[in-house]
Amino acid sequence: MSIFRHTEFMKSGWRLNMKAELECLPCLVRQAREVAIMSTDDLQLQKKIMRSCFAYMSETNLDRSPPEIAQGIGRIVKSMTGIEDPYGEVKSLHTAAALEMLPEMEKIVSESDDPFGAGLRLAIAGNIIDLGAKERVSDKDISSILSEAMQQPLCGADPLQLKAEIDKAESVLYLADNAGETVFDRMFLEQFTSEKVTLAVRGAPAINDATLEDATEAGLHRVARLIDNGSGAPATVLSDCSLEFRHIFEKADVIIAKGQGNYESLSSSDANIFFLFRVKCNLVAEHSGFPIGSLVLLTTSDG
Amino acid sequence: MSIFRHTEFMKSGWRLNMKAELECLPCLVRQAREVAIMSTDDLQLQKKIMRSCFAYMSETNLDRSPPEIAQGIGRIVKSMTGIEDPYGEVKSLHTAAALEMLPEMEKIVSESDDPFGAGLRLAIAGNIIDLGAKERVSDKDISSILSEAMQQPLCGADPLQLKAEIDKAESVLYLADNAGETVFDRMFLEQFTSEKVTLAVRGAPAINDATLEDATEAGLHRVARLIDNGSGAPATVLSDCSLEFRHIFEKADVIIAKGQGNYESLSSSDANIFFLFRVKCNLVAEHSGFPIGSLVLLTTSDG
Repeated sequence: MSIFRHTEFMKSGWRLNMKAELECLPCLVRQAREVAIMSTDDLQLQKKIMRSCFAYMSETNLDRSPPEIAQGIGRIVKSMTGIEDPYGEVKSLHTAAALEMLPEMEKIVSESDDPFGAGLRLAIAGNIIDLGAKERVSDKDISSILSEAMQQPLCGADPLQLKAEIDKAESVLYLADNAGETVFDRMFLEQFTSEKVTLAVRGAPAINDATLEDATEAGLHRVARLIDNGSGAPATVLSDCSLEFRHIFEKADVIIAKGQGNYESLSSSDANIFFLFRVKCNLVAEHSGFPIGSLVLLTTSDG
Repeated sequence: MSIFRHTEFMKSGWRLNMKAELECLPCLVRQAREVAIMSTDDLQLQKKIMRSCFAYMSETNLDRSPPEIAQGIGRIVKSMTGIEDPYGEVKSLHTAAALEMLPEMEKIVSESDDPFGAGLRLAIAGNIIDLGAKERVSDKDISSILSEAMQQPLCGADPLQLKAEIDKAESVLYLADNAGETVFDRMFLEQFTSEKVTLAVRGAPAINDATLEDATEAGLHRVARLIDNGSGAPATVLSDCSLEFRHIFEKADVIIAKGQGNYESLSSSDANIFFLFRVKCNLVAEHSGFPIGSLVLLTTSDG
C-alpha cells in the first residue's frame, strides 16, 4: 500500500470509530471457542457456552468495537464456568519466556546508537511474537526474532516525534497489552524518565491481556507507576473504565497505546495518543492503511 | 502422520459418524458471512442475516455433520434475500475456466501408461484447485497445477482396488461436489463404461456445489446419466435426499463420493463407497488420519 493511500486514508478515515465489521464475526466466534476451551475441559459445557455466545451475538449491538463484543463473550464464559482467569497459567509462561529474553534485549539496546528507537522496536516486537506457539523459545529463536524486529521497516509516524513529545511531557500514560509483551515494554520504558510514566493494565482478566499480577511478574513495577483501568475489556473502552483511570487518561500529556485492541477502542479519541502495534487482521489493515504484518507507529496528531 | 496411525485410526475410528466439532463453528460462521455477501450488497441486511444465523446456531442441533448445519444457514439466507443461487455466476466462471483446461487434461490422460490412474488424479485435482481465487487461469498455471497433482502422492486405498470394483460392478454411482470440479470428474468418467454410471448432483443450490444446470454446463450429460439427489445440503445427507436417489444409492454396486462434504455426511455408511478428496481442515485430517493437503482415496470396505 502506498504512502499516498495511507495519507489519504488517515486524512479521511482513520479517526472514525472502529466498529466491528462482518469479517470480525467468525474471528469473535473463534475467540469464544478458545476462551471456552481454556476455561473447561467439559465438552458438553463448551457446547453450552458456544450456544450462549451465539445467542448473545444474535442480540447484542454489533456496531461496537470488536473488543467490546469480546468482553461480552468473556463475561458469558466466566459466568458459566466460574473461571476468573482462564489464561492465567499461559500468561505466566509467556512472561517467563519473555524474561529469559531480557539479557538479549538489554544487549541490543545498550549496543544501539539509538537506544530509544531500539526500545521502541522491541516494544512493537513484543506485539509480534506469539509466545503461545511455544512454551519456551530457544536462544537461536530469540536472536532471530529480535534481529528481524530490529530490521523490519517501521510504518507511520517518526519515532523522533514520539521522543520529543515524551521529553516535553509532564505525564506519560502507557497502555499495556498482552502478558509477556509487557517485558518488551519494560525495556522500552527504561529509556524514559520513570517518574512521569504511569503504566495501565486491564482491570480484570481479558483473554491474555496483562493484569496487575501479570505486570508485576514482568517486573514493570520497577520502571513505572502501575494502575489498572478498572475494565475487563481486552482494550481501553473508556466508558467501561474507572473514574481514576479516566482522570489519568484525560490529564496525560502523551499516551502510548500498545496492540490492536487499544487501537480498535481508541482510534477516534481526541487525546494525544501514539499507537504501537503489529497489523494482524484485514480490518485493522484497512483502517490504518498498512498491510498485515506491518510494524506501526500511528499518532492521533496526524489525523 | 504414519501409515500405522492411519491404519489404527481406520480400524477404530473413522467409521464413526462425522459430527460437527467446536472448531467447525467459526468456519460455519465464516461460511454464513460469505453466503450473505454473495446474496446481497445491503450491509444492514447482511448484519440481519448474521443475527439470524447466530440465533439458529444457538438453538440448532450442533451434533449433526457440518454440511447439515450449513444447509440450515443456506436456508436462512435464501429466505431473507430471495436469492435462490447466490453462487450461480461464480459457478459458471469456474466451469468455463475448467473447460479451458480440458485439452491439457486429455493430453495427460492419453499420454499416460495408466489412463485410469491419471483420470483418478485429475478428479482429485479438481477438488484441489480453488478456481475461486482467479476468474481465469493462465495456460502456465494450468500446466503447473495439473503436473503437481499428477506428482503428489495419493494416500489411502489402492486405485487398482477401485478399478477392479468398477470393472465388476453393474452400477456405479458418482457423487459430484463443486461446479468446475465436475469437468475434472468428466475426464475421469471417460475412463469407465458410461452405460453403468449415474452421476448425482445436489437437488438445489448449496454454496458452489454443482446442480443439474452446472453439470450440464460442464458437459457431464455426455459421459453419464445425470440425476439430482433431491437435497439442498452441500453434501449427501441421505435422510434429506429423494426416494429415487436413495433407491439408486442402495442399489449401486460402487459409489464414488467426491469432496469433504460427501465424506463428512457418508463416512459411517455401510455402502461400498470410495471417497476422493483433498483434506482441507483439521477435523477431516483427524477423522481420515491424513494431514491437511493430502490427496486421499478412502474406501469403506477397509473399515
